[in-house]
Amino acid sequence: MAAVFGGVEGGGTQSRAVLLAADGKILAETEGPSTNHWLVGVEKCIEAINDMIQRAKVEAGLDPNTPLRSLGMSLSGGEQKDAINKLIDQMKEQFPALSQHYFITTDAIGAVATASDRGGVVLISGTGSNCKLVNPDGSQIGCGGWGHLMGDEGSAFWIAHLAVKTVFDARDNLVAPPHDTTHARKAMEEYFQVSDLMGMLPHLYRNFQKSHFAGFCKKLAEGAEAGDALCQYVFTQAGRVLAKHVEAVLPAAQEPLLSGDLGLPILCVGSVWKSWELLKPGFTEVLAKVASSEKFKGRFHGYSLLILQQSSALGGASLGAQSISAPLAMDYTANAKVFYKHTLNSGQ
Amino acid sequence: MAAVFGGVEGGGTQSRAVLLAADGKILAETEGPSTNHWLVGVEKCIEAINDMIQRAKVEAGLDPNTPLRSLGMSLSGGEQKDAINKLIDQMKEQFPALSQHYFITTDAIGAVATASDRGGVVLISGTGSNCKLVNPDGSQIGCGGWGHLMGDEGSAFWIAHLAVKTVFDARDNLVAPPHDTTHARKAMEEYFQVSDLMGMLPHLYRNFQKSHFAGFCKKLAEGAEAGDALCQYVFTQAGRVLAKHVEAVLPAAQEPLLSGDLGLPILCVGSVWKSWELLKPGFTEVLAKVASSEKFKGRFHGYSLLILQQSSALGGASLGAQSISAPLAMDYTANAKVFYKHTLNSGQ
Repeated sequence: MAAVFGGVEGGGTQSRAVLLAADGKILAETEGPSTNHWLVGVEKCIEAINDMIQRAKVEAGLDPNTPLRSLGMSLSGGEQKDAINKLIDQMKEQFPALSQHYFITTDAIGAVATASDRGGVVLISGTGSNCKLVNPDGSQIGCGGWGHLMGDEGSAFWIAHLAVKTVFDARDNLVAPPHDTTHARKAMEEYFQVSDLMGMLPHLYRNFQKSHFAGFCKKLAEGAEAGDALCQYVFTQAGRVLAKHVEAVLPAAQEPLLSGDLGLPILCVGSVWKSWELLKPGFTEVLAKVASSEKFKGRFHGYSLLILQQSSALGGASLGAQSISAPLAMDYTANAKVFYKHTLNSGQ
Repeated sequence: MAAVFGGVEGGGTQSRAVLLAADGKILAETEGPSTNHWLVGVEKCIEAINDMIQRAKVEAGLDPNTPLRSLGMSLSGGEQKDAINKLIDQMKEQFPALSQHYFITTDAIGAVATASDRGGVVLISGTGSNCKLVNPDGSQIGCGGWGHLMGDEGSAFWIAHLAVKTVFDARDNLVAPPHDTTHARKAMEEYFQVSDLMGMLPHLYRNFQKSHFAGFCKKLAEGAEAGDALCQYVFTQAGRVLAKHVEAVLPAAQEPLLSGDLGLPILCVGSVWKSWELLKPGFTEVLAKVASSEKFKGRFHGYSLLILQQSSALGGASLGAQSISAPLAMDYTANAKVFYKHTLNSGQ
């Protein structure tokens, strides 16, 4: 058969796989469970990947016993080299019919490769948060991504935590809240099913579940949309700190990343971006300041926020094919669309 | 036999018990393991208490089959009423020879009762942190004590976390560090036995142990004493936020608590107070500002920091005896000593 290339997008709750022809045509798509090997273990991770790809082969009318040319995987938890190499070795041994070549990268890098072959910034804000800048020459720099005890600023967890902490500090008279806490406190009591602050302790310790705690963010978004000032405030703060991640990686940006029509392309991944209108005041304020600072004056003219229209399994497939010098044709303009564009007057 | 009164100081790592005569004379003292029922469970908690008291009876030459008049316990984790009542019910059933009456309070309240019968502020900074103000009439108000995910400001955990977070943020270019991070980073790599930031993740998540993480605080104290500016900075910040706990409870203080010779008595409990000289710049700065603020001008004239010379098992015993209207004679001046006194010029 003609060369077929596979891609996987591996998330913490679900995953996607795609098969592509060399001309970039999608031959088949499948879905599967979590493939974050830190969460489900190596065994389940590689079984789930094999299952998705083999089903996709059948769906595309291909022989499941014929290996793909390459399989490129964009995995959450795909950061550490040793762990990644182990994963690939075990796949090769256990599933010899799966693929001839393997390539694993992070969810951030796979997302960028879906949207562009000239790099960009990816800014993830889902349950957790993370930021990576990828240059046109492939060099990378990151900020954040250290989890809820050492980072995750601007994520759903962080927003939920900031609101709850503001309620605690107000009740303790430790820090005066920037706005009335009545609505946030009521929303907290409803969401967590508690009647006082003491009741929150099991949610923070004994029965702590990061994704459940982070889920409170959605209720705060509803409060903000209904006009509550404190709920709006926590999202403005999240917008600020997310923009600070961009500021943190900006010094490493090579010229072509800043001088295109879009300005700096920032690919926004994760469900918190659904609340862009709430993040916007803080986000735009910080980047306007950056543009007018001595350090970036005349260099940073504007930015565009993009959202993916396709699974980053496509980016994974593309990087996998590149790794064996067989680049795929990609329609980047169809894979990502601009949802906000800001031209900065750096002379102000 | 003459009436004998028992007291227990229950901590997260070790406990102490004491037997007193009505005139306050100490008849016996014993030690035992942790009696924090959240950590070790109800079964082990009450067995350890029974064991310490029964050994103390024998040591004092008393018949172990004769119950004490009362047993007052000052327990870390002694906050929630339901849990406390369950603990007492089970003691009565399982150990009928232990005591006629029982009383349980928190470690904070037991500490105050050891130092004074006219109340005061207790400010705990050990692994975690907490602050309580007890008025002469027994009314109380608290600030903090919510654990490392929602508070613990100024504790050993918080100090260790602040230093590590400063190292992470500097490396990420997310926040410029207030001072050079070289020493703190090296100390972190040595203490946690890691070679890079990624290596810290197991210490924060999979293998997280709060007390071990908090233990890094001691290395930072050594760095501060050797002159490292960042290490000194984190302790100054801890001093600031600990003083803010005092500021938070201050509006509830009744007049006699502020007008004595000592000014506001603040009882300092926990090992972080060994580094008082490092906390001092931040602590004194915040309380000086409070004294000159419109809100407290003319009311808050000064404060004294005290440290216990005796186990707060004595305060537990005293409160237990009070609860059956049989107050013990206590030598408060011997139980706590002033280690710092500050008279504020509120007219400045």
